[in-house]
Amino acid sequence: MTLAIYPGSFDPVTKGHMDVLKRASRIFDKVIIAVLNNHEKEPFMSMEDKLNLIQVAVADANLSNVEVDCFDGLTVEYAKKKNAKVLIRGLRAVSDFEYEMQLAQMNQNLDKSIETVFLTTKPNYNFISSRSVKEAVRLGGDVSQLVPKNVNEYLIKRCKA
Amino acid sequence: MTLAIYPGSFDPVTKGHMDVLKRASRIFDKVIIAVLNNHEKEPFMSMEDKLNLIQVAVADANLSNVEVDCFDGLTVEYAKKKNAKVLIRGLRAVSDFEYEMQLAQMNQNLDKSIETVFLTTKPNYNFISSRSVKEAVRLGGDVSQLVPKNVNEYLIKRCKA
Amino acid sequence: MTLAIYPGSFDPVTKGHMDVLKRASRIFDKVIIAVLNNHEKEPFMSMEDKLNLIQVAVADANLSNVEVDCFDGLTVEYAKKKNAKVLIRGLRAVSDFEYEMQLAQMNQNLDKSIETVFLTTKPNYNFISSRSVKEAVRLGGDVSQLVPKNVNEYLIKRCKA
Amino acid sequence: MTLAIYPGSFDPVTKGHMDVLKRASRIFDKVIIAVLNNHEKEPFMSMEDKLNLIQVAVADANLSNVEVDCFDGLTVEYAKKKNAKVLIRGLRAVSDFEYEMQLAQMNQNLDKSIETVFLTTKPNYNFISSRSVKEAVRLGGDVSQLVPKNVNEYLIKRCKA
Amino acid sequence: MTLAIYPGSFDPVTKGHMDVLKRASRIFDKVIIAVLNNHEKEPFMSMEDKLNLIQVAVADANLSNVEVDCFDGLTVEYAKKKNAKVLIRGLRAVSDFEYEMQLAQMNQNLDKSIETVFLTTKPNYNFISSRSVKEAVRLGGDVSQLVPKNVNEYLIKRCKA
Amino acid sequence: MTLAIYPGSFDPVTKGHMDVLKRASRIFDKVIIAVLNNHEKEPFMSMEDKLNLIQVAVADANLSNVEVDCFDGLTVEYAKKKNAKVLIRGLRAVSDFEYEMQLAQMNQNLDKSIETVFLTTKPNYNFISSRSVKEAVRLGGDVSQLVPKNVNEYLIKRCKA
Repeated sequence: MTLAIYPGSFDPVTKGHMDVLKRASRIFDKVIIAVLNNHEKEPFMSMEDKLNLIQVAVADANLSNVEVDCFDGLTVEYAKKKNAKVLIRGLRAVSDFEYEMQLAQMNQNLDKSIETVFLTTKPNYNFISSRSVKEAVRLGGDVSQLVPKNVNEYLIKRCKA
Repeated sequence: MTLAIYPGSFDPVTKGHMDVLKRASRIFDKVIIAVLNNHEKEPFMSMEDKLNLIQVAVADANLSNVEVDCFDGLTVEYAKKKNAKVLIRGLRAVSDFEYEMQLAQMNQNLDKSIETVFLTTKPNYNFISSRSVKEAVRLGGDVSQLVPKNVNEYLIKRCKA
Repeated sequence: MTLAIYPGSFDPVTKGHMDVLKRASRIFDKVIIAVLNNHEKEPFMSMEDKLNLIQVAVADANLSNVEVDCFDGLTVEYAKKKNAKVLIRGLRAVSDFEYEMQLAQMNQNLDKSIETVFLTTKPNYNFISSRSVKEAVRLGGDVSQLVPKNVNEYLIKRCKA
Repeated sequence: MTLAIYPGSFDPVTKGHMDVLKRASRIFDKVIIAVLNNHEKEPFMSMEDKLNLIQVAVADANLSNVEVDCFDGLTVEYAKKKNAKVLIRGLRAVSDFEYEMQLAQMNQNLDKSIETVFLTTKPNYNFISSRSVKEAVRLGGDVSQLVPKNVNEYLIKRCKA
Repeated sequence: MTLAIYPGSFDPVTKGHMDVLKRASRIFDKVIIAVLNNHEKEPFMSMEDKLNLIQVAVADANLSNVEVDCFDGLTVEYAKKKNAKVLIRGLRAVSDFEYEMQLAQMNQNLDKSIETVFLTTKPNYNFISSRSVKEAVRLGGDVSQLVPKNVNEYLIKRCKA
Repeated sequence: MTLAIYPGSFDPVTKGHMDVLKRASRIFDKVIIAVLNNHEKEPFMSMEDKLNLIQVAVADANLSNVEVDCFDGLTVEYAKKKNAKVLIRGLRAVSDFEYEMQLAQMNQNLDKSIETVFLTTKPNYNFISSRSVKEAVRLGGDVSQLVPKNVNEYLIKRCKA
């Protein structure tokens, strides 16, 4: 059985992330989408909110072999603890690609037994990033095409608050 | 009549920006160069200084169909309010290009009626960025080849202050 | 009145080309889609077939301010003869971008009065190229999502021949 | 059970290809390395030579869940016939990346049920391509660091012939 | 005699930097590795620690024609003061490349007599950056493959503190 | 004394090549510009014409420490025979960069003692390539801004022939 980890900040999770997750869930026996607890930068959303939103989005998408989790520290350490041999990363653009290659090779250097596998999204999700979603929301833009339904409702509520 | 908006931070406006603006002014009936009021990051220059410097640079360049303005919020909302159907963006490098493609597609997603049009600068303006101008000025470098004459005078004065 | 030229090989014209053309037709008063007669390489389609297919595709798309033409020699010479001041080019990927920047700067060097304007396509047309269409058709693949309806019919007929 | 196809020209197979194959064989239950029979361009090696060399290289690397095959036509058709749901592609450089993204999206367009998964090689294999191997060999360069042992012996023999 | 300057932040110096330095020391008569004193951002290490670590790493690598120094202000001004006509920069990835091209052209604009020369590292050092080293160390990862021996010892000590 | 080789096809030599050569001649004690005799593809110009044109262009530019030569086979073999330890390559665009990185690493693999050094041209030479010069000339375009004076005269004569 192949277990794959899909690590990220998911601040917030977008339709691009969900598309990568769905593809991964069709390829691997089990996938854990794992939210990194980055103590260095202040996130837009709390870990609790992130996990709740992803849980609902995963349920809405009927991804039955997907588990939601969070972790601290090195991604490869977390993967080892979970007995996962695959890390999933989504690729959108060339700038992504180079950063991701460096990350994959760094992780290989830290632990040779763990492979990074890259998936692409549907072309019309290629331009979505958590950062641009947050920026659009902050300025009152409609992001319903960019994030799962429940994430959109959360963002509208937070904007009004 | 085709009205085009050339949005940006212009912190400060460079010869690269002015080259893009001049090209746009030859192609479209009217061009508004519009300074974005970004409440998220502290700019180097005040909005008042930015607008004054651009006004003078536009007058010095004899761009009679160019108007100078500023705006808050989403660029597409501002464009709609002005009845503009075109956004102008300058392209220098590959890293620009990808960010700009994502921005253009995000704006298309927010409003399908507004098109983004990309222009390039003269090759010898390709390496100028507002950030590198500010860095050179801070360290006492001569930027007279990189910015309009009145912007250079302003920067020298500010450096001495 | 601004006249723009959209030059290319169009061997064959794709939905990506048609999307660029439609956007250009909304921005400029008149657009000529101009098929380059490249004597250096043997095209897949004859000039006559190319022009016929584009004519029908333009009519089907109701682009009333678009004219179809062909030309020999330097693009800037053709543009000058037509009194056009704008060249249209579509941008898909980074590799396109660099080639197109070089071409635009070469054309600027040949004639300073003609500007190149870049447009992007819808993200889901980003992966279409005439070359990949021809390759898929040759191997019996279905390209109905990639080319205009009449071009698809033509390709099916040619495949059977 | 997940079956993955690793398609390519392998003209000749390099240490970079073998590294991708080894990684794939650790992730998926079974991997078929499938040599594309491209009728359009004259290859350096015959299909028979390619298959023989890959067979030996796979045996030497002890990749017991890897099968060697060849195919004609569309890759997605071949994958479907084999009941494979995954295509493997190696990524080296940015130029690769864009071409591969276009190919992956083209294949998605031809058959939505088949996913493309990207793997990277060890950094020191990043600069190897079949084309540069052939060029170095032709000029008498030593490529023993770039190709499997048996491929190197074959190339030396062919050079002498 | 050709004197070359290798400027940078070196926060901390990595095996990638040392590889570039070694290559430069073989090409030029004398090389100064010069640590930029950037007053704008708070570095991870003090200037004193940086200089000490580089001194030891240079001695360990037996680079007898290399001098270690630090500087404030514009790199070209420092180069002029030292009578150096060459700046050395390492190239890893495409994103580096574009930033470096802009920097080189900016420096050319500030002083035409100083040339920037680019060197690449061994491929397996291509993925190392000071930033990723610091991040891995912070999370408890082993970076002994990525930095010189004495730098690794320093980082372990600092982590424990 | 450092001897550097600047290898290439130079079919024909452009102002971009001459700019790289001039920069190299200021950095290194002696530079050999060496025309590769590529038996695989039919060049536009004969080796004799290439060498004559470069000789005159080098003399016109007063580059007294530059020698003109030609070679067959592997560049690193030629460099070794000449006791050169440096190869010069010009960098223009990202696509160049990746190809050049692969070539540099291939050459390192063939001979560890020879370093590749990259130089950039003036930004306004960034868009010149031998291929685009030939294409423009073929279509009757004026390339006097793109190639040395004597090369331009040669191209005009050949066009008329």
